[in-house]
Amino acid sequence: MTPLSPQARATLLAELPGWTDVDNRDAIQKRFTFADFNAAFAFMTRVAIQAEKADHHPEWFNVYNRVDITLSTHDANGLTQRDIDLAHFIERAAASLRAE
Amino acid sequence: MTPLSPQARATLLAELPGWTDVDNRDAIQKRFTFADFNAAFAFMTRVAIQAEKADHHPEWFNVYNRVDITLSTHDANGLTQRDIDLAHFIERAAASLRAE
Repeated sequence: MTPLSPQARATLLAELPGWTDVDNRDAIQKRFTFADFNAAFAFMTRVAIQAEKADHHPEWFNVYNRVDITLSTHDANGLTQRDIDLAHFIERAAASLRAE
Repeated sequence: MTPLSPQARATLLAELPGWTDVDNRDAIQKRFTFADFNAAFAFMTRVAIQAEKADHHPEWFNVYNRVDITLSTHDANGLTQRDIDLAHFIERAAASLRAE
């Protein structure tokens, strides 16, 4: 995997509202908020299973109903198509659990 | 819930090796490392179910096989017996998944 070109990065991120650049890293992040811990962890479980299937894992922080996710491809030292694919899956999982 | 007294805090933490104070907060933290993401998330799932049962939740960060956990009781603005109880459960869950 190679990092996305600046043009591809911009085009692909335009389809992922709410995902923002991380300071000082070639990575993207987004905060998700759910009804409660149960919903937040249900979301995390769906993402974890997909991450394991794709062998591509998020960095994430959870406190109660909040999940902060950072995506980057460590092997490529930057953002790749695998991050974009995982971000789209995350969006669908969050929507299915009615993230606010 | 009220925060633990300094004496009770010291006595109880002596039975929880590896848990250290968090800077600028009345909270404790510990890092756990597992064989891979699958084992780390299995650990998190066990802890999540217990946290939900006890209605007392961790703050935690995961990247691949690593889980950094912080415990504090938000309602008490400090460390309470509920944190100690959850820390003991976490130790048992980690041991059952062979945390290194």
